Amino acid sequence: MIDDLPAGLTARHLADDDHPRVLAVLDGWWGGLKGEAGSTERALLLPRLYFQHFNTTSLLVEHDGGGGVAAFLVGFLSQTEPDTAYVHFVGVDPALHGQGVGRALYRAFFALARSHGRRHVHCITSPENTASQAFHTRLGFTASGVKPDYDGPGLDRVAFTIDL
Amino acid sequence: MIDDLPAGLTARHLADDDHPRVLAVLDGWWGGLKGEAGSTERALLLPRLYFQHFNTTSLLVEHDGGGGVAAFLVGFLSQTEPDTAYVHFVGVDPALHGQGVGRALYRAFFALARSHGRRHVHCITSPENTASQAFHTRLGFTASGVKPDYDGPGLDRVAFTIDL
Repeated sequence: MIDDLPAGLTARHLADDDHPRVLAVLDGWWGGLKGEAGSTERALLLPRLYFQHFNTTSLLVEHDGGGGVAAFLVGFLSQTEPDTAYVHFVGVDPALHGQGVGRALYRAFFALARSHGRRHVHCITSPENTASQAFHTRLGFTASGVKPDYDGPGLDRVAFTIDL
Repeated sequence: MIDDLPAGLTARHLADDDHPRVLAVLDGWWGGLKGEAGSTERALLLPRLYFQHFNTTSLLVEHDGGGGVAAFLVGFLSQTEPDTAYVHFVGVDPALHGQGVGRALYRAFFALARSHGRRHVHCITSPENTASQAFHTRLGFTASGVKPDYDGPGLDRVAFTIDL
């Protein structure tokens, strides 16, 4: 379902059973950022509900032959804004960075969003994550500047928007 | 929009601007459970995206005359299962417990879900939250028993389902 992935990788929609497999790779991919508290924070941002109720716009990339999780994207169609879709959480195995996997996932999500009549995609990242900000800018997203306490006290965010 | 609330309370759909107001009451309502880490956990479970993209099935109850937040319910329609809706997070001011506010919020959500053709509602709670489990059972939900690591390592949950 994604035709511009590197050889040896295959994409499909996320399923409920993928939840523990995806959580299991996060600490390694995020370099154990913030230790056990960081691990809990990442789990709380990615509850199982996304793997149950937003599968139709969420994707998993795996290594062929049972080689494990390579990347994922969790996104949804806005219920409130009929022309908007939202990317909530994306991860790519650091060993695969620079090979276009993240770009391929976003393009596949854009195509899914367009097929549901969506014209805008939003997402956020933390101000510290400059690599993520550069990535979204390269993809064509426009950044908002830092919004203090956007997701709660101390949880500053940068908001990104792209027109499809 | 909810006609069985106690006098002096009014309901409306949640709006983006309500996010900081709702987060601000959580620590008091949860009795400061788990201190600063608990405060961050609650914020991470309730990112602003719910207040932007799921307003049509999320509700706020306020005291009349600008008296502040009394209760709220954040829920959504499943994208994956066209007959299912999901209640993600509910809070009621402890000073109002026992007055039917939570029940009124759930009934209003059930009506919204039915109006979108939904026949089942799911939600979860933590095994420690026996008051929540008793509340959902009284409402007519069926409990799953404890599911270990349901939302991640150490994040056990009890799942509830009701047929509309």
